[in-house]
Amino acid sequence: MFRWYSPQDKKLVAAVKQITGRKPSNINVYKLAFSHTSIAKENVDGFKESNERLEYLGDAVLGMVIAEYLFKRFPYKDEGFLTEIRSRIVSRESLGQLGRKIGLDKLVVYDTKRKTALSFKYLHGDTMEAFIGAVFLDKGFKFCRHFITHNMLNAHIDLKQIIDNDTNYKSKIIEWAQRQSKVVKFQMVDEKGHSHQKQFKIQILIGEEVISFGMGFSKKNAEQDAARKACETLNI
Amino acid sequence: MFRWYSPQDKKLVAAVKQITGRKPSNINVYKLAFSHTSIAKENVDGFKESNERLEYLGDAVLGMVIAEYLFKRFPYKDEGFLTEIRSRIVSRESLGQLGRKIGLDKLVVYDTKRKTALSFKYLHGDTMEAFIGAVFLDKGFKFCRHFITHNMLNAHIDLKQIIDNDTNYKSKIIEWAQRQSKVVKFQMVDEKGHSHQKQFKIQILIGEEVISFGMGFSKKNAEQDAARKACETLNI
Repeated sequence: MFRWYSPQDKKLVAAVKQITGRKPSNINVYKLAFSHTSIAKENVDGFKESNERLEYLGDAVLGMVIAEYLFKRFPYKDEGFLTEIRSRIVSRESLGQLGRKIGLDKLVVYDTKRKTALSFKYLHGDTMEAFIGAVFLDKGFKFCRHFITHNMLNAHIDLKQIIDNDTNYKSKIIEWAQRQSKVVKFQMVDEKGHSHQKQFKIQILIGEEVISFGMGFSKKNAEQDAARKACETLNI
Repeated sequence: MFRWYSPQDKKLVAAVKQITGRKPSNINVYKLAFSHTSIAKENVDGFKESNERLEYLGDAVLGMVIAEYLFKRFPYKDEGFLTEIRSRIVSRESLGQLGRKIGLDKLVVYDTKRKTALSFKYLHGDTMEAFIGAVFLDKGFKFCRHFITHNMLNAHIDLKQIIDNDTNYKSKIIEWAQRQSKVVKFQMVDEKGHSHQKQFKIQILIGEEVISFGMGFSKKNAEQDAARKACETLNI
């Protein structure tokens, strides 16, 4: 089918083809994927249209495709391993890098005056998810799965490096505290249960303030759990 | 294709057909879905085979299918609404009910001697997820999506009721404390930022012990956040 495109739309069509290997069937869904919430306008119903709904959809599609990919690639690894590796692949930082690698950062449209606001922290990772949502809506599940596994995973992700890179949240928070000249303490606050069912509860203090709690069936796991939560809370 | 089945397998074939509307192509994947970790045996490589990997896969497929379903059904609702409704549909309790409704509780095989252990708390919800993983592997994405939206959602889930049922975690924890004759306190511990960017931090104490922290851009949201985390920690 022949379509009339504005010069700007022509550029977008070419960019999407460059990234996915196929021309868009519906250009509007990609336009929406590149509309950051900072430029969202209310439509007739008072609903603000931005890429945030597509981001929600893309996040779910991505999570499922990576889950299937890892499930089949590692038939003898347990669900804990699969969950951990998936969460590393789909972390905001990792998706942001990927978005920049495939050139999405040049396509996203946002209000430069509001660049300092909180919602910009994950701009590129969010755009990556919204773009996946758009590909899924425009081309269907099979094409989108192929796009994720081939154009993203196989082309840009070093799975071996991701697996080797075991995030140690405890070191992460200790290093952060040193940089900030703050004192970080890990304290055991509770021990429950008997022998092999024993559960530990750890709290982390920065100075005098309790920042997080962690639970685990070993002291080390409880510390990691508490440290991970502290990293989240402190945006480390 | 004609297959030889043992009498036990024949029962399973009939049960799967009853639930999904189609005979299994590969009975083994359903057998695995109904193998609780309490009866897992080590295979030749020392890997323990149970339904936990299928549970991980089914969880991801279910999350994606429900995400797409809600995305299309509610074109003018924002991603916060979609995320919240999805998490209510796929909660362990809700999936457990669903599993029992479609009869999965009669199919799952577990070690009755270990019935009291922690891993049994969510037996039926977990089995529901593993079963979805099996349907996905055996019949592919399209069939599995149809199974989830028709046989599960449309047949057994009252979406209106789920939407109306706005979980109030604060009341939940207050009621719990009353039942347990414990004193629960919500305390503001921090206020950051200015005017409309203001962020609140709330802590919840049960007696003298800090149970959780919550953050939010309103006092109410911070309380809900803290209360939700407390409900998680306390298994309420």
